[in-house]
Amino acid sequence: MSGPRRTYAGGVRGVEFVKGHGTENDFVVLPDPEGVLELTDRRVRALCDRRRGLGADGVLRVVRAAHVEDAPSTVDPSGWFMDYRNADGSVVEMCGNGVRVFATYLVSAGLAEAGEVVVGTRSGPRPTRVRADGVVTVGMGPATVTGRSTANLGGTSFPGFAVDVGNPHLACLTDFPVDEFDLTTQPAYDTSVFPKGVNVELVNTVDAGTLRMRVHERGVGETRSCGTGTVAVVAAALHAEGQRAGRRTVHVPGGTVQVEITEDGSTLTGPAVLVARGELDADWWAAADR
Amino acid sequence: MSGPRRTYAGGVRGVEFVKGHGTENDFVVLPDPEGVLELTDRRVRALCDRRRGLGADGVLRVVRAAHVEDAPSTVDPSGWFMDYRNADGSVVEMCGNGVRVFATYLVSAGLAEAGEVVVGTRSGPRPTRVRADGVVTVGMGPATVTGRSTANLGGTSFPGFAVDVGNPHLACLTDFPVDEFDLTTQPAYDTSVFPKGVNVELVNTVDAGTLRMRVHERGVGETRSCGTGTVAVVAAALHAEGQRAGRRTVHVPGGTVQVEITEDGSTLTGPAVLVARGELDADWWAAADR
Repeated sequence: MSGPRRTYAGGVRGVEFVKGHGTENDFVVLPDPEGVLELTDRRVRALCDRRRGLGADGVLRVVRAAHVEDAPSTVDPSGWFMDYRNADGSVVEMCGNGVRVFATYLVSAGLAEAGEVVVGTRSGPRPTRVRADGVVTVGMGPATVTGRSTANLGGTSFPGFAVDVGNPHLACLTDFPVDEFDLTTQPAYDTSVFPKGVNVELVNTVDAGTLRMRVHERGVGETRSCGTGTVAVVAAALHAEGQRAGRRTVHVPGGTVQVEITEDGSTLTGPAVLVARGELDADWWAAADR
Repeated sequence: MSGPRRTYAGGVRGVEFVKGHGTENDFVVLPDPEGVLELTDRRVRALCDRRRGLGADGVLRVVRAAHVEDAPSTVDPSGWFMDYRNADGSVVEMCGNGVRVFATYLVSAGLAEAGEVVVGTRSGPRPTRVRADGVVTVGMGPATVTGRSTANLGGTSFPGFAVDVGNPHLACLTDFPVDEFDLTTQPAYDTSVFPKGVNVELVNTVDAGTLRMRVHERGVGETRSCGTGTVAVVAAALHAEGQRAGRRTVHVPGGTVQVEITEDGSTLTGPAVLVARGELDADWWAAADR
């Protein structure tokens, strides 16, 4: 009878959440230390639905690695694990923007000390450094230029570099202003080079230390930001100059990040913003699985 | 130093909010009984931004009418007033889906008893009835068919009725399946009939008691639902049959509502869903005004 009132005024807690974003790649964070949350695909889709739910690009479940069946053996079982689901419910290994939001949440909630925080992911442990001003640096692992390939947009071919950052990228450096591209459809690419699809970046050089990029993510469409994509384009830009290490500022539609490429790895530094915290309505949560 | 932690773990409350929707027309509800919240246009836009903020079609500020300067004199000053802002920050008089969410919030928060709840709006007091199962009936006032006009989509003219529901509508009854229309652009209309713009509805008759509609809202684009639009199309359908009163079920992309037209008024009955409650991060709220 008094269902709605029970939930909001009676003090019965629903499922806790935090909403946040990194360069406008946005997430619902779900604290679930003991891994007891029944986070079904349907609930992920309902949570990420921008009208029926809270709305997000994905869900970041915060769980001790010991409770995650498919956590890699390289991840400390007692540490925090980022169980990342895409808005469609699918499992994703790693997300450079998501890790920043995740680490910031850990510190804000008192689950980790500011400074060095290791986040477990399906791609292995990711070292992060959380600064007090909301800027987070994430170790992104090696970015390897594997060859050349070509993207085709609107009948024009754009040469680029294939870059492996754990996931496949095709970074196309061009003098054509990236703001003017139409990225509403997937750019055509060589499926023999990228049999599992590819994230396509279009990149302008702004000055010696600065790039501007737009990205079309496979299976998603154009996004405001792509963490691994920013790493890929810096690796490609350095490669084009015959360098194997260096750093660049990268402007994406959702903001600005810094990328450093070293001989054996890379880091991504950028903002993480926590927007709100709260609890999901218990009736809504129950209905979201139906 | 410990800014984020202060906000989330230290118990300092930020600005309270509830997120909800009515047939997928979604809102951020901001309780502000005494009218002390500094709800600037910038903050409305930030709140409604679906990546930087919480994301919504609009904001519903919950305030005692006495604290609203432009509240109509017909509204009880001691009663609750729905201060509705569109996602762009502009003030809106009335929203049939918003009122259902607003009244449901009042009951859920213990600010009103379930049953009859009068909501003050800039269009005057709106009587509502909140049922325990989440269905809400709203008195929408008179819906007046004022004449005939025509909408043009993709080179084809669709005859319709001009209907005044406090705001202007052009309800076009057609046998062409509404699911197949391209509503990505504003349908053309006669600006001499609708000098302030118009909401255009395309309507199919499903059976004697049921309509299906899609709507293009002026200044917004196609939406999942439009409360006054559903009232307008039922008034138009009845008018086409030579009737001045009756009821219809109306399917919109975001759900299903019931509309009853009487000699001197109308009611809209439909669901209201509260998704989550929480508090905005204090740092985010401060930054949202910059």
